[in-house]
Amino acid sequence: MKELSTAQDLSSYIDFAAHEGKEITLVGQIQNLRVLAWGGFVILRLPNYLVQCVADATKINMPLAELKPEATVRVSGTLVKANIKDVAMWPREWEVSIASIEVLSMPSEEALPVDTTKKELSCDLSTKFDYRPLTLRHPRERAIFRIASTVYNEFGEALARLGFTRICSPKIVYSGAEGGANIFKLSYFERQAFLAQSPQFYKQMMVGVFGRVYEQGPVFRAEEHDTSRHLNEYISLDMEMRLENGFEDIMQVEAAVLKSIFERLQRECAPELALLGVTAPSIDKIITVTFAEAHQIVLDQTGRDCRGEKDLDPEEERVVCDYAKKTWGTDFVFVTHYPSVKRPFYALDDPANPDTTLSFDLLFRGIEITTGGARMFRYEDYLRKMKARDMNPQLFESYLQAFRYGMPPHGGLGLGLERLVAQICGLANVKEASLFPRDRKRLEP
Amino acid sequence: MKELSTAQDLSSYIDFAAHEGKEITLVGQIQNLRVLAWGGFVILRLPNYLVQCVADATKINMPLAELKPEATVRVSGTLVKANIKDVAMWPREWEVSIASIEVLSMPSEEALPVDTTKKELSCDLSTKFDYRPLTLRHPRERAIFRIASTVYNEFGEALARLGFTRICSPKIVYSGAEGGANIFKLSYFERQAFLAQSPQFYKQMMVGVFGRVYEQGPVFRAEEHDTSRHLNEYISLDMEMRLENGFEDIMQVEAAVLKSIFERLQRECAPELALLGVTAPSIDKIITVTFAEAHQIVLDQTGRDCRGEKDLDPEEERVVCDYAKKTWGTDFVFVTHYPSVKRPFYALDDPANPDTTLSFDLLFRGIEITTGGARMFRYEDYLRKMKARDMNPQLFESYLQAFRYGMPPHGGLGLGLERLVAQICGLANVKEASLFPRDRKRLEP
Repeated sequence: MKELSTAQDLSSYIDFAAHEGKEITLVGQIQNLRVLAWGGFVILRLPNYLVQCVADATKINMPLAELKPEATVRVSGTLVKANIKDVAMWPREWEVSIASIEVLSMPSEEALPVDTTKKELSCDLSTKFDYRPLTLRHPRERAIFRIASTVYNEFGEALARLGFTRICSPKIVYSGAEGGANIFKLSYFERQAFLAQSPQFYKQMMVGVFGRVYEQGPVFRAEEHDTSRHLNEYISLDMEMRLENGFEDIMQVEAAVLKSIFERLQRECAPELALLGVTAPSIDKIITVTFAEAHQIVLDQTGRDCRGEKDLDPEEERVVCDYAKKTWGTDFVFVTHYPSVKRPFYALDDPANPDTTLSFDLLFRGIEITTGGARMFRYEDYLRKMKARDMNPQLFESYLQAFRYGMPPHGGLGLGLERLVAQICGLANVKEASLFPRDRKRLEP
Repeated sequence: MKELSTAQDLSSYIDFAAHEGKEITLVGQIQNLRVLAWGGFVILRLPNYLVQCVADATKINMPLAELKPEATVRVSGTLVKANIKDVAMWPREWEVSIASIEVLSMPSEEALPVDTTKKELSCDLSTKFDYRPLTLRHPRERAIFRIASTVYNEFGEALARLGFTRICSPKIVYSGAEGGANIFKLSYFERQAFLAQSPQFYKQMMVGVFGRVYEQGPVFRAEEHDTSRHLNEYISLDMEMRLENGFEDIMQVEAAVLKSIFERLQRECAPELALLGVTAPSIDKIITVTFAEAHQIVLDQTGRDCRGEKDLDPEEERVVCDYAKKTWGTDFVFVTHYPSVKRPFYALDDPANPDTTLSFDLLFRGIEITTGGARMFRYEDYLRKMKARDMNPQLFESYLQAFRYGMPPHGGLGLGLERLVAQICGLANVKEASLFPRDRKRLEP
């Protein structure tokens, strides 16, 4: 038997101010190396930092030239004041004056296939994804995924503070939620099964249990098309809640959650935002326009008449966003009351106009990032709507149980993590906000 | 255009003390109903509470007999002091004296197939799962999944505080991590793909990026056997970290994270723990025994000699746990240095004894809840080990990239959420800790 200490400081966060002028030992990978006649610089990548270390050739224990980018080293030295200009560095007020370096691990390859030491990764998207274990080590890539981590976490924590309970629904399912052909099939022992396109059915069932639930997990869409807006596997941030006042409750909760996310980004990801040259958006008001008004805005702004269409196309979404920014000074606009024919069977029709639904999309900087709305909650309504759509209720028996045994008025939303992060970071392609994207052709790494 | 208010209080948490003696309006589902000559009781299920409401037949606006369990109602009344004995109720110091009730939604079915109004759900496991949308509404079931939600969240938040970054790795993968036949296959357009058995490869790649990462997500095991310890889909709580001192770093972080989890359970889930009749465990010391010592303990305690075996069987795990509890007063014991032959190829052998690995299992109250350890970090070691195991390195090319381009010494662990929750809650079957379990035969709901 051996007993390990529980007294150690296990955090990788460093109180640099408290270490100023003192000895410090850091273990990290070498992001970059500049060997000069007098010594040089070792830029050390740590879990939460990129620390500049300065070597005096006459004082350190080994020639810097023996090191390589991506080696793991233990650097000992003194933390001293600095004034670093490079926005990739964090911290920028301190650097380490190196006393000694110990090599813990060296890369096998002589040359890296993509140069991660440059300010920008100068390779095309396909190469960037082929060499993901390496290219993700670039500071800009790290910044994107530190932001993604923070967005993900604050979505959950903000909802938990509002009384929501986290759920984990199965991803291997017996029937699709959204329907259609875009579903991956698999063999589950003797049976045919599917990969969940969304946690829709489960989060609705769970509203009957907890009243307010959320889930954060992968969803799978076997979409044939390969665009800059789509992934075949992505992270869906989902919530579902009882409605006490109306479907506006959902938009109010979403706005509050987004506000928490952006405030936390400003607090915790300032270096990452600065490196990417972007600022966290703000959502201080909740602006809604109806679907009909959105078409009217497009007509007024561009002369394009789409009022007969049952959906907004990407160009229309951009026009509506530009108009909202110009007119109401907001990056966010909720488009409400989409036509019933374009919404899933579980959408709740507007009693005042049954051709439309009490639903919304949230547009952010030109792109739809959320689809949400109120759902039907009466068993009889489900049977009626399924019949009208030629669906077989028997295939949905366990889902319909929830409604037979009583469900509150409720609704919810799904938010695509990668889309939201791509828009925050100003990325042209949503795939850049996925660590290991899955698309029509890509299954590796 | 319509602007919605951002000023509303959106939380479902209620400051009962502040409402004492005042008007209050609650929307909830009826958990239970007792109609008596003088009026009766309506037990209201809210997102975070189970509130007792008392009706005086001469004063309320409708006969209680018109209500049904699982109806959704809006109850208005006065919050008054109470002294409720039933541990299923929360709060127990207050109740609502009903002024009026409004029905928002009624169940369609006259009778519920499982009586959720009783103290215990008196049905077998199979029925419980068949009627999950209903049976989860029982207070004991709710308690289990409030605890699960809290365990899940604190695992992530504790690691984030220690400087870990959350990652989301793909679940549709091009090759398995753990190998073997226990892998689900699917068609990914023209290609064969698999469902991830663990995020192992990805979290290792990501250690090269962030140094400290964690993931919380589903994993899939096509195991043919159907036991009380296994699920075919479960939530894996994973972390991976650079090692600065040795593989003990991993156990120290795990102990710190578990400590945070248990403290948070005590803080936030006291009513749920009380209802289940359990207490949150504590982990105040980190006790490790080697695999060889574990066999010796079993021999000494039971006379069973398993020293030739390369693994611990469930019975041995129970004996070691009992011994640890008795001897060191701990519910947790780390068993270290498992034989190389029983660990995956990426496990790091102990230089002092290459037949064993720098690995561990964490046993908790008789069952293994974690497998972890140090991993190899040199490219050449991977090639050598893969060759020895007849594996083809070309099938792992993108994974091996990370090592070719340089990786720090690292290790990590995977913790099964459902197993941990089952052990905390004293559940006999791990499936009871899964909202919608997937096993050899069950794919619904």
